[in-house]
Amino acid sequence: MSMVYLLLVEAEIEFLAAGGVTSPQGFQAGAVSAGIKETAGSLDLALLCSRSPSRAVALFTCNRIKAAPLVLSKRMLPSDAVRGVVVASGCANTATGEAGLQDAVEMTRLAAESIGVGQNEMVVASTGVIGRRLPMDKIAEGMKRITLSPQGGDGFARAIMTTDTVPKQAAVGFEVDGARCIIGGSAKGSGMIHPDMATLLVFITTDAAVDTGFLKAALKEAADASFNMVSIDGDTSPNDMMLIMANGVGGAAISSNEGKRRFQAALEALCVGLAREIARDGEGATRLIEVVVEGAPKLEDARVVARTIVSSPLVKAAVHGGDPNWGRVLAAAGRSGVAVEEAKISLAIGGVDVVAGGVPLPFDEAEAAAVLKGDEVRISLKLNLGDATATAWGCDLSQEYVTINSDYTT
Amino acid sequence: MSMVYLLLVEAEIEFLAAGGVTSPQGFQAGAVSAGIKETAGSLDLALLCSRSPSRAVALFTCNRIKAAPLVLSKRMLPSDAVRGVVVASGCANTATGEAGLQDAVEMTRLAAESIGVGQNEMVVASTGVIGRRLPMDKIAEGMKRITLSPQGGDGFARAIMTTDTVPKQAAVGFEVDGARCIIGGSAKGSGMIHPDMATLLVFITTDAAVDTGFLKAALKEAADASFNMVSIDGDTSPNDMMLIMANGVGGAAISSNEGKRRFQAALEALCVGLAREIARDGEGATRLIEVVVEGAPKLEDARVVARTIVSSPLVKAAVHGGDPNWGRVLAAAGRSGVAVEEAKISLAIGGVDVVAGGVPLPFDEAEAAAVLKGDEVRISLKLNLGDATATAWGCDLSQEYVTINSDYTT
Repeated sequence: MSMVYLLLVEAEIEFLAAGGVTSPQGFQAGAVSAGIKETAGSLDLALLCSRSPSRAVALFTCNRIKAAPLVLSKRMLPSDAVRGVVVASGCANTATGEAGLQDAVEMTRLAAESIGVGQNEMVVASTGVIGRRLPMDKIAEGMKRITLSPQGGDGFARAIMTTDTVPKQAAVGFEVDGARCIIGGSAKGSGMIHPDMATLLVFITTDAAVDTGFLKAALKEAADASFNMVSIDGDTSPNDMMLIMANGVGGAAISSNEGKRRFQAALEALCVGLAREIARDGEGATRLIEVVVEGAPKLEDARVVARTIVSSPLVKAAVHGGDPNWGRVLAAAGRSGVAVEEAKISLAIGGVDVVAGGVPLPFDEAEAAAVLKGDEVRISLKLNLGDATATAWGCDLSQEYVTINSDYTT
Repeated sequence: MSMVYLLLVEAEIEFLAAGGVTSPQGFQAGAVSAGIKETAGSLDLALLCSRSPSRAVALFTCNRIKAAPLVLSKRMLPSDAVRGVVVASGCANTATGEAGLQDAVEMTRLAAESIGVGQNEMVVASTGVIGRRLPMDKIAEGMKRITLSPQGGDGFARAIMTTDTVPKQAAVGFEVDGARCIIGGSAKGSGMIHPDMATLLVFITTDAAVDTGFLKAALKEAADASFNMVSIDGDTSPNDMMLIMANGVGGAAISSNEGKRRFQAALEALCVGLAREIARDGEGATRLIEVVVEGAPKLEDARVVARTIVSSPLVKAAVHGGDPNWGRVLAAAGRSGVAVEEAKISLAIGGVDVVAGGVPLPFDEAEAAAVLKGDEVRISLKLNLGDATATAWGCDLSQEYVTINSDYTT
């Protein structure tokens, strides 16, 4: 049983059935097909809003090239009075200069008008192809057709997708000092995904009352253990953004140490769940890869080694082919920058021990190849240098990844 | 015309027809099929030797996991008395523990015996699958059949190949203070290639007399401008090694400043030539990508940005598909860690200007797609922040790369 699930049991946190961003009280969402995406009828314009002002904080991409909506959202966050977020999918509104920034401003104006809140209370995000202007006329027209509802989380999750094949959403519930607290989330990913601050688009809602200082620290810690441990292709996007809104409508207040501990555990469990779904649905992926590194000198060392392995094209291709090529795992650990010691390394692939003390063990190649063909492949590396542990997630590298990315804009 | 070719003209350096490691005087080479590779009849055991003791220095992988032959060769270099190098291809002799180290020692003994030199005068290298012991009986048997000759460079270049589809070899000649100097080289690469000190296996010979101090500095500088600017897949190998041997047989002495300048220019031209061939022959590659970054604040900045772009799976896949997806080039530059300024960036792909001042220019997509379908694609990025320039080489990412690497050991 993983660390996360032990935390869940201990903190009495449960995943809710069919949960998402509208599971917490006081949130509504809606989406329409505005014609931003090329595929006719696809949902591509989404609104999420809270019935009362929310405390909101966000993490943004570290990419020096930043999408216009991020430039705008970054200016207004953190905030104690956010009412919602508007998202366009299919067009990144990146590398669009001053005109793109004006388009992002206009998106917040249209969204605010549609909901009936102040323009400076709306966060904005975009995802899709870089270098194209948003079709503002279509957005203006689409915005008028959006109907918000407490059941709108599913449509929201679908609308923010680009090359994703399935929507990613979840919600967790727990008690704090006798009051019920729910945290919901929705994420999109698939390609151009690599650990670097916030990754992809992630929107999280909670009906608890949380001060922005703790909210920001909790979001960063949860991101470091989840989305920042996912790599699909090593590329980070100018549009990556992770937003959390806390509206306090549910009545739970996160103020005691025990309450903070539970909130952190629940938020992290939610984020890990979404991160795993992001990895599983990586472009062209046929299976999820989970890399668990144990025995590292420090947490950051464990994380670096785990991320390096899960990012290695050669490891990813070997997993795709069901090939127990453990040498590539060792080679990736060796180039991670962490001072691993070859003679101390043990490695298991899908539960089959393949290396001990840095040298190969006799193992059944057919058995190892069979576990590599499952839906989830766990690579477990023990460095035997210390006590730190980390887990990273990724997916196999398939011919389909190349096909998808050889012909995306045209 | 590139910087390198300008240097060549200025320094009166010429590429020799059918050049390789035995082009410089006093070097002989030979190779046999010893049965290390699975394909019957493939050359896989190679010897290169000088008729007199050579000054030799090498660069080794920074991977913490080091192949046994590298551990051994690293102990004996730099040296004033190297007579040759023996290379096994098809088996990396990596993650083989103490037994693997003894196998490497035995390889130098067998090679030294075969040539009739001292065991401590032989360098050793291996390349191939990780975690398997060398078939020492086959190597002992094969060594007896190797015939050395001054025309043996071609066989040597073929024998060191693994997934390479063509041998890579070249030689350059120039005059120093009235004496003729030749530098020859042979390299193998194809997969698990990324800038990190020496990359792949590279063997360089020269008949000039060069002191080891300058030789080491010259090798490092040449590597930084050539092999360290090549990326195929971001993975670095435990077996990467770059060796240079200078035997002084030709009569030229590299001692004057002008001699050193010419030697450096010639060595760099040779290495750039080989590096380009490595990139062009990347696993599954259908075309060479050359990324030229101009206007960076510092040389290292220019190199980092160029390498990040040429390493991006999304850029590589776009080039494979002939898709002028310039947004991915900007996104890669943005995540390179260098403080690029979006509004100052200009970009041309294959001579077609696509971005100026950070925003897209109108361009003919069909024309851009056509240049992306050539044998060589040049991506030219101007940062407009300073005067530093760098060039990096890589290849497109194809479905074939995945196919090759899905099933390499089995």
